[in-house]
Amino acid sequence: MKILKHPHKKQWDRIIHRPLTDNTQLFKVVQDILNDIKQRGDKAIKEYELKFDNVQLDKLEVSVEEKNLAEQSIPDQLRRAILTSKKNIEKFHSAQKILLPKIETSAGIVCWQKVTPIEKVGLYVPGGTAPLFSTVLMLAIPAKIACCKEIILCTPPNSDGNIHPAILFAAKETKVDRIFKIGGIQAIGAMAYGTHSIPQVYKILGPGNQYVTAAKQLVSLNGIAIDMPAGPSEIEVIADETANPIFVAADLLSQAEHGVDSQAILLTLSEKFAKQVLWELTQQLQTLPRKTIAQKALLNSKIIILQNQQEIIELTNQYAPEHLIIETSNYKDLAEQIINAGSVFLGHYTPESAGDYVSGTNHTLPTNSYAKSYSGVNLDSFTKKITFQEITKEGIKQSAPTIEIMAENEQLQAHKNAVTFRKLTIDNI
Amino acid sequence: MKILKHPHKKQWDRIIHRPLTDNTQLFKVVQDILNDIKQRGDKAIKEYELKFDNVQLDKLEVSVEEKNLAEQSIPDQLRRAILTSKKNIEKFHSAQKILLPKIETSAGIVCWQKVTPIEKVGLYVPGGTAPLFSTVLMLAIPAKIACCKEIILCTPPNSDGNIHPAILFAAKETKVDRIFKIGGIQAIGAMAYGTHSIPQVYKILGPGNQYVTAAKQLVSLNGIAIDMPAGPSEIEVIADETANPIFVAADLLSQAEHGVDSQAILLTLSEKFAKQVLWELTQQLQTLPRKTIAQKALLNSKIIILQNQQEIIELTNQYAPEHLIIETSNYKDLAEQIINAGSVFLGHYTPESAGDYVSGTNHTLPTNSYAKSYSGVNLDSFTKKITFQEITKEGIKQSAPTIEIMAENEQLQAHKNAVTFRKLTIDNI
Repeated sequence: MKILKHPHKKQWDRIIHRPLTDNTQLFKVVQDILNDIKQRGDKAIKEYELKFDNVQLDKLEVSVEEKNLAEQSIPDQLRRAILTSKKNIEKFHSAQKILLPKIETSAGIVCWQKVTPIEKVGLYVPGGTAPLFSTVLMLAIPAKIACCKEIILCTPPNSDGNIHPAILFAAKETKVDRIFKIGGIQAIGAMAYGTHSIPQVYKILGPGNQYVTAAKQLVSLNGIAIDMPAGPSEIEVIADETANPIFVAADLLSQAEHGVDSQAILLTLSEKFAKQVLWELTQQLQTLPRKTIAQKALLNSKIIILQNQQEIIELTNQYAPEHLIIETSNYKDLAEQIINAGSVFLGHYTPESAGDYVSGTNHTLPTNSYAKSYSGVNLDSFTKKITFQEITKEGIKQSAPTIEIMAENEQLQAHKNAVTFRKLTIDNI
Repeated sequence: MKILKHPHKKQWDRIIHRPLTDNTQLFKVVQDILNDIKQRGDKAIKEYELKFDNVQLDKLEVSVEEKNLAEQSIPDQLRRAILTSKKNIEKFHSAQKILLPKIETSAGIVCWQKVTPIEKVGLYVPGGTAPLFSTVLMLAIPAKIACCKEIILCTPPNSDGNIHPAILFAAKETKVDRIFKIGGIQAIGAMAYGTHSIPQVYKILGPGNQYVTAAKQLVSLNGIAIDMPAGPSEIEVIADETANPIFVAADLLSQAEHGVDSQAILLTLSEKFAKQVLWELTQQLQTLPRKTIAQKALLNSKIIILQNQQEIIELTNQYAPEHLIIETSNYKDLAEQIINAGSVFLGHYTPESAGDYVSGTNHTLPTNSYAKSYSGVNLDSFTKKITFQEITKEGIKQSAPTIEIMAENEQLQAHKNAVTFRKLTIDNI
């Protein structure tokens, strides 16, 4: 991990560049598979499961027996942890329900918004090196609070055709309706187009690798909503000399261990502190089971020494990190000035891993600087707002001249007529 | 316009099918132009303006002089109408600001969401047959209420290189920062990538034809957020015999006049009423300036006689109309059961054109059944939510076991370390 001292602002863009590749070729490969799934449905899905997940599946859906068996095989300690996590996530996401007022915008014109659940949602939980049961919680809990009618989940099975019991347990506890043993591009295609055994959904949510992301983006061209395009995970830590270099090093590594394309950035004003963190990081790295992954991720990572607090805020908002930990004495002041970030962790005792599992906030967050325009998954992600308006006779009569003159100037005579005919009728009553 | 009586549910999908074409070829054409704009910037934009809008432009940005001149040339009546409309839209969208609570999810863990504006937004206002100054209001007003820092607007000039004064007036009144004379694909490319004279934005909003929509969708593959993919405009009217066939015919035509690919659907239980509407519609059509357009749109349109109210609700939610007018005596009951629609107009005196201009709701709405998963433009469209969490020493100590067991089971040792090191430090204090 490199230390960069006082880089010129002109260099910032290059320094915080994400390790991304051109995805034009990727889109082509992914589109071909999506087309195949659209045409051949379940048959194609099973072939891709054999090809990519190395598993021969008879049935794609997880059976009731499998679910019951899974529950029995979860150690008590893990079961309790999952339920604690669930309770906190539920508490935070339930509080996101809002009551919207009816507004009388003019005399006789009342307007309001109504939040309605998206009826059918598809959740994707990646497979890979570890069973991400926490992601099940992060997606299914807000879906249920939003009252989505049909919640399905796709996740790749292992080569024996099984899903990790902790994932099945989390899905059961959060009342996911149906679970399918499908991963990658084929999972996204299945939920987007529907097949004989998998229902079509209106929105697909959840993290995934570059193939999953490309598939989500491509199906979004055909009317399926998605939560956000996900990229490699990333963290930024802002720290001063009041921070504990052991904590900061652990926080940077907790990101680096995610994948070889993860990125960890430390911003500080203190060169001394930067060096302490680097030393600690080297120590901690040695004992990590995922050392090889973390080591590669650290090649994309940087410790940047800046000249003043203003620079720290500017660079942070320019980078727009998925995760931001502020480990300084004045963390509250700094937090006030953050405008681009996915989730922010405040103070010396709020590690990012708390947000992944227990604090209650969502860990499905915008990466790749998308925090400039996207929120992380939250209750809104599972709902939409319909507007309503009700106008009285008096209201339409009073507003008629405004509508008529505007419609006329936009050369929309029939728009004008719809008002004029009503006005004339009222006048004749 | 065809009348269909008691169609079987199996036929519904086909009956309400939108007049859409395959866009694969379209995407290719649009992508080529986007690539060219990305590479050659202003030079390419000017060439496309000459090619598509038939205008030779020296400068792309509207000057202060042009803005001042425009203001003077607006008739007083139109000026007042625009300001009335603005007031109502402001009132409704200001009421969409929400205050989010801080939640203590567990002892010592406090989480909250903070709504922050998207810093840079690009608004697109289509040109075409009429100057859509009302769309300027619908996009710029919520952008300003959200406190977006930089609001730019692109709209195609006429062949003299001028923008309609009503558009410039609306933009001035809503405090749009900069206005550019660019239309179509080139406008979307300019705002997505930025050029020498046009700043890059983080999100692009606004309606447009199939080229604009394809361009928005394609730039969204490269990290630019968009409001929604827009399709041809559409309306559904639900009416019973208490409705006035003159009003209903006018409402259907107010949609049909938008474009040849617009769609108008009437659902009713009464054959007699259906026939009255059809007769009225034929009469009103004769005098419309946009008769030829409306006539073509009516070929895609249907009057559907259903058997009971339950069918009306089911078909409506299946169609998910952009605009829905409920002109029945029991409109409140029906409205309660609507779960998929963009904007709903209640009762006999609430025409859709009121929503276009004066009621205060937004008229940039999801078409093409996207109302199943998308909201129309509203204050949320210009903001995003950052989550924050702050944990005390006691909080992290109590939650440590939960995080540790979950991280361990997800095979993320560094995630566990970040908590364990903190716990040990607290124990040693």
